[in-house]
Amino acid sequence: MHHLLILTKHPDEYRGLVEAAGCPDLAIVASADVADGVARGAHSDILLGDPSRVREALPHLPRLVWTQLTWAGVESMLDPSLRRDYVLTNIRGVFGPLMSEYVFGYLLLIERKMLPRLEAQRAGRWDPTLPGTLQGKTLGLVGVGSIGAHLAATGKHFGMRVHGYTRSSRDCRHVDRYFHGAEKPAFARDLDYLVVVLPNTGDTTAIVDAEMIDALPSRAVLVNVGRGRTIDDVAVVAALTSGRLAGAVLDVFPEEPLPAASPFWTTPNTFITSHTSAPSFPTDIVGVFVENYRRFHRGDSLLYRVDFERGY
Amino acid sequence: MHHLLILTKHPDEYRGLVEAAGCPDLAIVASADVADGVARGAHSDILLGDPSRVREALPHLPRLVWTQLTWAGVESMLDPSLRRDYVLTNIRGVFGPLMSEYVFGYLLLIERKMLPRLEAQRAGRWDPTLPGTLQGKTLGLVGVGSIGAHLAATGKHFGMRVHGYTRSSRDCRHVDRYFHGAEKPAFARDLDYLVVVLPNTGDTTAIVDAEMIDALPSRAVLVNVGRGRTIDDVAVVAALTSGRLAGAVLDVFPEEPLPAASPFWTTPNTFITSHTSAPSFPTDIVGVFVENYRRFHRGDSLLYRVDFERGY
Repeated sequence: MHHLLILTKHPDEYRGLVEAAGCPDLAIVASADVADGVARGAHSDILLGDPSRVREALPHLPRLVWTQLTWAGVESMLDPSLRRDYVLTNIRGVFGPLMSEYVFGYLLLIERKMLPRLEAQRAGRWDPTLPGTLQGKTLGLVGVGSIGAHLAATGKHFGMRVHGYTRSSRDCRHVDRYFHGAEKPAFARDLDYLVVVLPNTGDTTAIVDAEMIDALPSRAVLVNVGRGRTIDDVAVVAALTSGRLAGAVLDVFPEEPLPAASPFWTTPNTFITSHTSAPSFPTDIVGVFVENYRRFHRGDSLLYRVDFERGY
Repeated sequence: MHHLLILTKHPDEYRGLVEAAGCPDLAIVASADVADGVARGAHSDILLGDPSRVREALPHLPRLVWTQLTWAGVESMLDPSLRRDYVLTNIRGVFGPLMSEYVFGYLLLIERKMLPRLEAQRAGRWDPTLPGTLQGKTLGLVGVGSIGAHLAATGKHFGMRVHGYTRSSRDCRHVDRYFHGAEKPAFARDLDYLVVVLPNTGDTTAIVDAEMIDALPSRAVLVNVGRGRTIDDVAVVAALTSGRLAGAVLDVFPEEPLPAASPFWTTPNTFITSHTSAPSFPTDIVGVFVENYRRFHRGDSLLYRVDFERGY
């Protein structure tokens, strides 16, 4: 018999979905409260939870073998003061489609001139202004993991060219051209949309720097759906304020909620979307957990295992 | 030698694109003015033009063999008073991608709550409200021709179920379930989005009637990108006003520009987009023309030939 401890904001919904999936040999304790959960589930060998709750529970679960996070972002689990004597898996696959909805939703809002068109409508004015189109435009992805690969596929569906800037990987069939290392200006030069989809690791801090931003055409729009620290926000604010960059769609920030004093609130042509681009919907998360539990139960290797050293 | 008369709003752009394509044995006359064009191109056997100009030029081109329209909509060419002793081709294929951008742009605007999120931003408020998602939602298409098929493919890309209401066709592999004839209520009952993409023919007038609209769930949104007369606009305004229908995105109307007195201007939860969903970009149109000219020159059958009797 395995013992699962669920520590999430909505424990009853998660418990109901796991139970409905009929996992064999599995007893479940679920709570939103870490102290309550570890008291009732102290013998758990499996933990399913939000990163902040998992972090707090780790010292209290001596039999822990496997932790399934409900998020993609793992940086809070990489703190060297935390134990690493267990298998950590995160969520991948399910965020690609959600990120595609977010990114292409905003790209189409911009191309199709939806906001000026709505203003015309409110003024009672027939507005036959031609829209733009994504066809033939160039999408640049900084980071081409599972989410970036899904964005690349959606870009191809809409007839875009897709360029990728990666450390070394070049295995996504939907990316037309790869750039690495010192090729930031060459990568940025032809882009219509620069979409950043990187996790926080030591290597990714401010990877989108003034060199990359200054090389973008003035028509370009920056979209950040990864982590706030991966872009040099001073350079981004400056480029948007001076008009050297046409716009930005920012879902993530170094500090969240975005502080009232942040210059982003008043930066022109900027959309702020409050870290909502790819929420963890319980049905999606439980789908990944159940597949991994079946593997765990059979003794097979798990999907989406995190390498503590690489940080993803 | 063939003789092409171009009659479009932007004749020089069209002429330049056709010339750049290097069509063999082709002399070109181009004008925005019909009287000028037919005077200089009276011997033309090929006509490439906007429907209104084509209509006016038809009586003056005795050698006409083939007309390539720059539009998808052919209804103005079906007037029984007009000659039919020539091959008429319209534009298909290129509008599917543009319509997908339009339709899914607005679906995502709605699902991702972009307008309320923008209001929160303008108020300086961090707004972590969860978005909706297209995944698992049901898209209902009224009309599954080449444009509908592209919308169906895009719906599948975003993880939607796709239902189709057609006269009899059922050959699109991206449509999960087909409905016909008297099945309007069964078709409408489970839809999240009802997208109408029908041409104007005698058979399609008000095909989206009170019976279909009243069978929709109250969460449903109507999108019309076909022709204005295909929906019963009185029933649509009533359903939107009473809240029995959640919203509408309307690109086409029985009379365009939409008259100032139209109730649509003040109907709640309605987007009016001034017939801009799929403009005829000259590069796309000339691409179709050039492919058809190669076929014409070889004596092969042409793409997208219109059947005057069926009306499409």
